Amino acid sequence: MAEPFVHRLRVRYGECDAQGIVFNAHYLAYFDIALTELWRAAFGSYGAMLDRGADVVVGEASARFRAPARFDDELDVGVTVARLGTTGITTDYAVRRDDELLVEGRMRHVVVAAGSQAKEPIPDWLRDGLAPYVAAQSTVAA
Amino acid sequence: MAEPFVHRLRVRYGECDAQGIVFNAHYLAYFDIALTELWRAAFGSYGAMLDRGADVVVGEASARFRAPARFDDELDVGVTVARLGTTGITTDYAVRRDDELLVEGRMRHVVVAAGSQAKEPIPDWLRDGLAPYVAAQSTVAA
Amino acid sequence: MAEPFVHRLRVRYGECDAQGIVFNAHYLAYFDIALTELWRAAFGSYGAMLDRGADVVVGEASARFRAPARFDDELDVGVTVARLGTTGITTDYAVRRDDELLVEGRMRHVVVAAGSQAKEPIPDWLRDGLAPYVAAQSTVAA
Amino acid sequence: MAEPFVHRLRVRYGECDAQGIVFNAHYLAYFDIALTELWRAAFGSYGAMLDRGADVVVGEASARFRAPARFDDELDVGVTVARLGTTGITTDYAVRRDDELLVEGRMRHVVVAAGSQAKEPIPDWLRDGLAPYVAAQSTVAA
Repeated sequence: MAEPFVHRLRVRYGECDAQGIVFNAHYLAYFDIALTELWRAAFGSYGAMLDRGADVVVGEASARFRAPARFDDELDVGVTVARLGTTGITTDYAVRRDDELLVEGRMRHVVVAAGSQAKEPIPDWLRDGLAPYVAAQSTVAA
Repeated sequence: MAEPFVHRLRVRYGECDAQGIVFNAHYLAYFDIALTELWRAAFGSYGAMLDRGADVVVGEASARFRAPARFDDELDVGVTVARLGTTGITTDYAVRRDDELLVEGRMRHVVVAAGSQAKEPIPDWLRDGLAPYVAAQSTVAA
Repeated sequence: MAEPFVHRLRVRYGECDAQGIVFNAHYLAYFDIALTELWRAAFGSYGAMLDRGADVVVGEASARFRAPARFDDELDVGVTVARLGTTGITTDYAVRRDDELLVEGRMRHVVVAAGSQAKEPIPDWLRDGLAPYVAAQSTVAA
Repeated sequence: MAEPFVHRLRVRYGECDAQGIVFNAHYLAYFDIALTELWRAAFGSYGAMLDRGADVVVGEASARFRAPARFDDELDVGVTVARLGTTGITTDYAVRRDDELLVEGRMRHVVVAAGSQAKEPIPDWLRDGLAPYVAAQSTVAA
């Protein structure tokens, strides 16, 4: 089973709401930020993906909130590839502060031709780049 | 079965990303905006909820993206109460542009004592206020 | 002297920070939202501007914060065209809650050819459309 | 003259608009993020400020946009304290990509008693902590 890819970020003041905690919508942005870093590790960058003619659009996103994060917290956003289908990429997220699990999430992206909304099979270079981050139990996930 | 509560909003320029479409995280904010209007219709306002000693925190959120929305689009965000549990409120969302369904979502909130994270049973006034918006099939939902 | 153009909006929960007030950066977004509505009133829409080959980029923005706005407040964002130069459009903003002035701002946009960053003279149709919103003292402003 | 304090950040996808460039309002958030790091370097953290009974509110903010930043750019946000008044702190910002100056800005904060909007003189520990970051020409600035 793969080690999850982990990106650390710090909670910004403007991301906290009147309850003093991170507003829920920002976690989807956190997932996106961590995935951007996974792209970088896997095959160079999101821009490199576009240069090679592929793009991704979001099909589904979900999050389960276990405990709140607060301003100035350092958060570790872990990403694992749960499933690589024909055109779909399912990624799982775990947001931790130190060892405490705060938020879990899942996103499903679909590969499209860059500049369009037309689905395309996941290119080999993309599949190969993500291979180290695919969870062992991925064949049954999602 | 209840008519869904519908709130109309217009897509802002800063909510669209480099693909020219609404960035996915903003839909959770759209759900929140529509729910705020549902609070207003149901029992006065979110502030009235706090004044009566109750608050809500988000337990889960999910969205399925069917088609993109673009800058300056007018969107109708429909909300239905899918389930009222002991402490949990499950709401369903449907974002439409004209008659086209763009995004579907679901959120689960938990009632807490205002100023705390301690779960509380849904107060009667809150349950009564939401009653007109509860979907008929709610007993089996969520 | 022109009546200011006024757009009403309601403060969203996610726009308030841990101090319980609107985070300062969001006021620049409020200015942009009001300007988008001014475009609509003046010549159809921002999209109509692009269709005619013109776009605008932001050159400068400033805001002075007099009093805070809070969640669920209804705000009136007034816009006046302070100056129309050769390529530059200077707009002034006043954000009010009821009669109380909360925030004042100014933005300077520059007209460019759509799809580029190349400055262009303000087209006649754009100048004519904005004419009703130009403040009388505009020749000495900015 | 002080070396400016510099904080590096990477442009997020959701911060870019349909023009493919960072939406102007986000630069005020970038200023705030860099200032948060300056607080950390100067006296521990923003939280430490609150613990000692002081808070800051924003009085004015401005930005001049020279060139656009794009998704995935690494930006260096420099901060210098331009002026320390009796209750006011004026900070200057310069956002660079490599050696290119993209955006310049200025903010004026006012010290208040934590939990209130009542102005207070800048405490000595805050003045001392910021001293290394005060620009030499500060007595005439702002």
